Amino acid sequence: MKFTIDKTIILENLNNVIKGVSTKNVIPVLNGIKFDLTNQGLSLTASDSELTINSFIEAKEIATIESTGTIVIQSKFILDIIRKLPSDLIHFEMIDRLKIRIYTENAQYNLNCLDANDYPNLKMDEHKEPIVLNGEVLKSLINQTVFAISTQELRPLFTGINITIMGDLLIFLATDSYRLAKKNIKLSTPVSTDVNIVIPGKNILELEKIIVDDELVEMHIFNNKVLFKYKNIKFQTNLLSGTYPNTSNLIPTEFGIIAKLNKADFTASVDRAALLTQGKDKNIIKMKIENKEMVINSYASEIGKVEEKLEVDTDPSAMIDISFNSKYMLEALRTIREEEILLLLTNDVKPIVIKSVTDESLIQLILPIKTY
Amino acid sequence: MKFTIDKTIILENLNNVIKGVSTKNVIPVLNGIKFDLTNQGLSLTASDSELTINSFIEAKEIATIESTGTIVIQSKFILDIIRKLPSDLIHFEMIDRLKIRIYTENAQYNLNCLDANDYPNLKMDEHKEPIVLNGEVLKSLINQTVFAISTQELRPLFTGINITIMGDLLIFLATDSYRLAKKNIKLSTPVSTDVNIVIPGKNILELEKIIVDDELVEMHIFNNKVLFKYKNIKFQTNLLSGTYPNTSNLIPTEFGIIAKLNKADFTASVDRAALLTQGKDKNIIKMKIENKEMVINSYASEIGKVEEKLEVDTDPSAMIDISFNSKYMLEALRTIREEEILLLLTNDVKPIVIKSVTDESLIQLILPIKTY
Repeated sequence: MKFTIDKTIILENLNNVIKGVSTKNVIPVLNGIKFDLTNQGLSLTASDSELTINSFIEAKEIATIESTGTIVIQSKFILDIIRKLPSDLIHFEMIDRLKIRIYTENAQYNLNCLDANDYPNLKMDEHKEPIVLNGEVLKSLINQTVFAISTQELRPLFTGINITIMGDLLIFLATDSYRLAKKNIKLSTPVSTDVNIVIPGKNILELEKIIVDDELVEMHIFNNKVLFKYKNIKFQTNLLSGTYPNTSNLIPTEFGIIAKLNKADFTASVDRAALLTQGKDKNIIKMKIENKEMVINSYASEIGKVEEKLEVDTDPSAMIDISFNSKYMLEALRTIREEEILLLLTNDVKPIVIKSVTDESLIQLILPIKTY
Repeated sequence: MKFTIDKTIILENLNNVIKGVSTKNVIPVLNGIKFDLTNQGLSLTASDSELTINSFIEAKEIATIESTGTIVIQSKFILDIIRKLPSDLIHFEMIDRLKIRIYTENAQYNLNCLDANDYPNLKMDEHKEPIVLNGEVLKSLINQTVFAISTQELRPLFTGINITIMGDLLIFLATDSYRLAKKNIKLSTPVSTDVNIVIPGKNILELEKIIVDDELVEMHIFNNKVLFKYKNIKFQTNLLSGTYPNTSNLIPTEFGIIAKLNKADFTASVDRAALLTQGKDKNIIKMKIENKEMVINSYASEIGKVEEKLEVDTDPSAMIDISFNSKYMLEALRTIREEEILLLLTNDVKPIVIKSVTDESLIQLILPIKTY
């Protein structure tokens, strides 16, 4: 293997795959990135065996290919090494199966490599009927839901995003059992078989970072894995096994109180009130609605108290006194793009639903906290 | 105490003093910031008893003063509280000796305060003959030396910067015994009494952050403390006690090898070589000069090796093979502003001196490391 490539191109493609590299030492060869150079181009692959990322550089993007071959380069420092080399063109030359020379005119790195023969054969199959989404739409689906997943390994399914497709209705849903985020869109083509899968949250977050524009993303769904194809990148993750709990009966459909609020003002008030929450009651703030006025407050015995007043568009008889986690509220509010929001309430123990005034496709739900 | 002030003004002045607040709980009242409002203006003071910072806002900068008074406000959250309030004008109203209300139209914080009667009387005396420096010059003196102080408390004097003044010659010097940084300037007015003091490094770093332009800084030196006056800010720190070791005989005056190098190229080569240093030999790289060529290299058994070649302007017979700490070299190089530097060398155990070609006022010295 011997080739010369533009620094920007190799850096960009290494950046695509680097997050796939295993950080564990169970299979040592997975700590490396597999470089596979053919006359068609250079294929870069990284995997931790659950997540596999491949980025392909076509031959026409490579300055010169003198000889082809396969080698596994240790991922540690590789981005820094390339980034710091003092030239736009970088030479790669395999010395033997376990050594590569990466160099420019006056600087050279001789790096020990891992044995390409040990690298597992990672199948990245494609489905004959992939689901096609716009890149920006997929980014939104992820961003508007993924923050609500659980970080607790106790209930593994809750650490993932539940994706269901029935006909032409696609739903992303995440919950940690204290809050829930749900976003749906209509597909241009209905699926022939319904889908109900759970993708690990940490992997879908990496996918979100790789997608940078509105180019199309293909989603190839299998029983135990899903492959996303985006531009020259293939991103394959395992699925979490098990049946995701049915959450449809958690979201109330009737509410005693509907309050319309300016999103920016409400967000700023919750944020200021959150500042004084501490210790065991961290993030808990109180909200009261009465006579079309909302009062938000919090209290920290050592520091003091804060009180915020907001006008709210609601029925004059609407009255409630409720407590919630301000961090959950701020994260839910951040997903809504419209200027005005609706808070849908029943009483101080029933879920709070947050929606935009106009967009029915996104629902944020937070359970209140009982305080004494 | 009741007054209204522009958010930007109060924030800027709180920012000036906040680093003076004690983070220990030995004297609880020092966890607060003292607000002292008279008809002349608002004085803000923070201190940990070794470092005291005062920022004064003149009455004409305050929107309205309804009544004067003194109160000590807890420093925790105070910057965030002011920053997040939704108005340009912020009202402060003392409720009683231990409570203050900070508010705008719809948002209010009621904060518990500390007892102003407990606040120590911090004298910030001024000297009749202060030393006057330009702000930018003082920043350079600090930046070009302070990084070389020791972080080890074993030799407390080395955790400070040694400032000496003899006649009109002012010298800033720092060393951790493995490297040394020394910068001198000429004062416009000679001092009548020589000065030899040691200022705690962490405090002088805070001073450096406060100075933002070339306005004059007055230095008022006393036996056990020094007061810096800059604009509306007074910054007073204790001195470290003891006699700073005489370092003048550490800096060689004769060298067998004088090598002239492009600073940017040398820096980049050292930086690339440093990338592969690890483990117990962290930061150690080798440098060899022979036949007017410099070769820099480092080696990490697991990862590989790196080799850099540089042309160097030196006597053709100059020959040396020496090892040094790359981090120390990079930090020393960063202080030199000229494009070309001189490396002054004797042999592989004598200090390496780094200077600019034209500026004799700055000397950086690094001890080589013996490798086997």
